Amino acid sequence: MTTTPARQDPPRWLDDDEMAAWLPFIRVVSLLPQALDRQLREEVGVSHTYYQVMALLSAQSDRTATMGDLARLTTTSPSRLSHAVTSLEQRGWLRRSPCPTDRRVQYVSLTDEGYGVLEAVAPTHVAEVRRKVFDRLTREQVRQLRSIGSSLLEALDDSITTEPTS
Amino acid sequence: MTTTPARQDPPRWLDDDEMAAWLPFIRVVSLLPQALDRQLREEVGVSHTYYQVMALLSAQSDRTATMGDLARLTTTSPSRLSHAVTSLEQRGWLRRSPCPTDRRVQYVSLTDEGYGVLEAVAPTHVAEVRRKVFDRLTREQVRQLRSIGSSLLEALDDSITTEPTS
Repeated sequence: MTTTPARQDPPRWLDDDEMAAWLPFIRVVSLLPQALDRQLREEVGVSHTYYQVMALLSAQSDRTATMGDLARLTTTSPSRLSHAVTSLEQRGWLRRSPCPTDRRVQYVSLTDEGYGVLEAVAPTHVAEVRRKVFDRLTREQVRQLRSIGSSLLEALDDSITTEPTS
Repeated sequence: MTTTPARQDPPRWLDDDEMAAWLPFIRVVSLLPQALDRQLREEVGVSHTYYQVMALLSAQSDRTATMGDLARLTTTSPSRLSHAVTSLEQRGWLRRSPCPTDRRVQYVSLTDEGYGVLEAVAPTHVAEVRRKVFDRLTREQVRQLRSIGSSLLEALDDSITTEPTS
């Protein structure tokens, strides 16, 4: 039994305001990836995670990143990322290559074919993001969401900086 | 090739404000469940989905719900929910029973042992929710998040109402 300070203090339960924010928010956090996933699987047969990997590579110079950078950018665990990269490589959409100067480093590149897939699917994906998110929010709420998201991300990024990436 | 109206219109890409909101938000959506999951797995050896199933049952009268209600409340796919319920039943934390009047309906109840587990883990879970979310937000942002979350949930709930639950 650990005895951290958090355990010794009496629990600070969520108050009514916090619970009224938490319940819809945690449902959104659960449902949004499912909705984006469903649309992408129907459209092009890849998950949202796979789409994110390709989209992030397309924004890198030479459409190439190290596996470590890719893990950090996509917030995907090393094992899930490795699985995604292998699957996308088998389709010919990504290509792995070793770093010539450091054998521990591996590069991943988006192929021309992969870029073509991304170009074909991006319009319907962004339309789905609009339908599920931005069409529902006022301009003011978009700015609020940016600020809230950035604040939450600080706490979450802190908690993954110690995870291994390679 | 389908030809929906969305495909014929030119894509409305996200503008700078929207992208500035989207990038941190989609990372939060991806990282928050991982963080909550990690804490619960370390603490009590269950995933956040399992915790949610038990927490939702604890709030029902007689701590009992039908599988259909549970699927709707937890926003979990029928197959994942069935897997979670089976696993929690094997630990003695849930109990399934048939409805005496309708053989298609199955009840799920939280056992006293399951309730005890929930009571034991809830304080550290809520502390983690505070650390990752509410400690990072002002009161005003909590109200904004409630409003934003409720708006987004409408679009997402619409999209799952046609999914089968039993």
